[in-house]
Amino acid sequence: MTLRALIVGAAAGGGLPQWNCNARNSAAYWREGAGAPSATQSSLAVSSEGANWALINASPDIRAQIMARSQLQPRSDQGLRDTPIVSVLLTNADIDHIGGLLTLRERQAFQLITTAEVAEVLAANPIFNALDPALVTRRVIGLEDPFDLAPGVRASLFSVPGKTPLYLEGETVETEVLGEQTVGVELSDGASSFFYIPGCAAMPAALADRLGGAALVFFDGTLWEDDEMIKQGVGQKTGRRMGHMPMSGEGGSLAAFSDLGVARKVYVHMNNTNPVWRSGPERERAEAAGWEIGYDGMEITL
Amino acid sequence: MTLRALIVGAAAGGGLPQWNCNARNSAAYWREGAGAPSATQSSLAVSSEGANWALINASPDIRAQIMARSQLQPRSDQGLRDTPIVSVLLTNADIDHIGGLLTLRERQAFQLITTAEVAEVLAANPIFNALDPALVTRRVIGLEDPFDLAPGVRASLFSVPGKTPLYLEGETVETEVLGEQTVGVELSDGASSFFYIPGCAAMPAALADRLGGAALVFFDGTLWEDDEMIKQGVGQKTGRRMGHMPMSGEGGSLAAFSDLGVARKVYVHMNNTNPVWRSGPERERAEAAGWEIGYDGMEITL
Repeated sequence: MTLRALIVGAAAGGGLPQWNCNARNSAAYWREGAGAPSATQSSLAVSSEGANWALINASPDIRAQIMARSQLQPRSDQGLRDTPIVSVLLTNADIDHIGGLLTLRERQAFQLITTAEVAEVLAANPIFNALDPALVTRRVIGLEDPFDLAPGVRASLFSVPGKTPLYLEGETVETEVLGEQTVGVELSDGASSFFYIPGCAAMPAALADRLGGAALVFFDGTLWEDDEMIKQGVGQKTGRRMGHMPMSGEGGSLAAFSDLGVARKVYVHMNNTNPVWRSGPERERAEAAGWEIGYDGMEITL
Repeated sequence: MTLRALIVGAAAGGGLPQWNCNARNSAAYWREGAGAPSATQSSLAVSSEGANWALINASPDIRAQIMARSQLQPRSDQGLRDTPIVSVLLTNADIDHIGGLLTLRERQAFQLITTAEVAEVLAANPIFNALDPALVTRRVIGLEDPFDLAPGVRASLFSVPGKTPLYLEGETVETEVLGEQTVGVELSDGASSFFYIPGCAAMPAALADRLGGAALVFFDGTLWEDDEMIKQGVGQKTGRRMGHMPMSGEGGSLAAFSDLGVARKVYVHMNNTNPVWRSGPERERAEAAGWEIGYDGMEITL
């Protein structure tokens, strides 16, 4: 058995470039085009045999992502309607993780797998009826309750610190809630396993224990430093306020993973403001700490 | 004064290729890649001076569309957040026309202009609160009531035969409703004017009268023949059942426009099953009747 992970989109919400952004990384794209670093929004595809894939999160860029990845395209020896995507699992209800559901219409059957809390968000928006209930089975999965995600791939969801999606925020916002609104995923083919955690606001001891000694972890790399968006003048919020622990600094992921003995660590869900998108001291520091910087199309086999 | 129209996306819902389609046109893309015809989903940009643009419909492909069109990108001499898009006008509430709204977030001000019926659809889906109400002004416009769409561009909405979006269909469906759920747009800079009608189920006499003698009409080119999707084995519905009159046949747009004296006629919103995407007798027949087949990036100046 082989366990395959394909980074479909390595960027956080907005992507790189972001449609209305003139900060350094996005501006480089507007100026230089394809010569500058670019990435689509957050999604990972997982397979055991390579024929059937589960998509973890459906980004608004999903049509362009499928056009760019032959693994996810209709197969020439199949029918007039075909996709190798057998299931879509959502790790939260943020726009960058659910917007792409609107593209997965056109009378195609697949399983849509969420926690009960994320299922409620979808149910509250009739536009998601674009996914015909007769064809798209909505399956609610509890935390710590292993299930079949794709042929040969077992998965299990666990709570990680997070917050409610921005578009559902009320007057007060709790940013490190442990519940069903933000989850990490453990994937396994019985022999090998890895973790996918594209959003995580903090590293409690229980989560560190869970990840310790893992063969592979894809982890939230939204920001390099907590006040990065404030410093760059493009926002008023810290990373933690947005539900994301930074890479650097006290309580950042570089520090949190330093003693966990994880064999392979890959950053995903990088915001377009993150300096690790280009060569420089921040990227060097992350790589020196044993991290790889994920990119669209990166495929890892376990 | 100059009036500019830029086809941002020439394809109907699903785009070309469509994510799960193996019919001829989509399959050519999966096999040949960029060598095969391709197009993003339905959207037109309009400007008078070329600095500020109104977007008519926000397709799910909008991020890729902005990346492909320098006219719609942040300007290098502006602030850290910038867009030349000053307003977004919706002609109906179909997914291919509203899905892209979810991408136009990230604290950017613009006007979102709809009829009252389309406004209700948006209001019924809290996910569109991703467009911060403090920044994105929702403006409801009545039929036949001219308004400023962008600097130097006046617009007026008029009813065209259409139907409710698929995801809101009930047990019975009326397919040629004249109301506020599907509209056409007349654009004018005071000297020149043109029409944009990406969805239209039939050509009543009043609509023919309105379009007669126009300098330019962009018109619904979804299907070549009414039962095209049934014939190709990819659907059970006729074009008219989906709210779109075909190009060919009795009551099709080729016949309906033959005596209207429209100076320039451009098909848009072509479905991926339409044979006019490639060279052949259907495309020749449309071109012989004076039609141009729209494509992504086509820009027309009046």
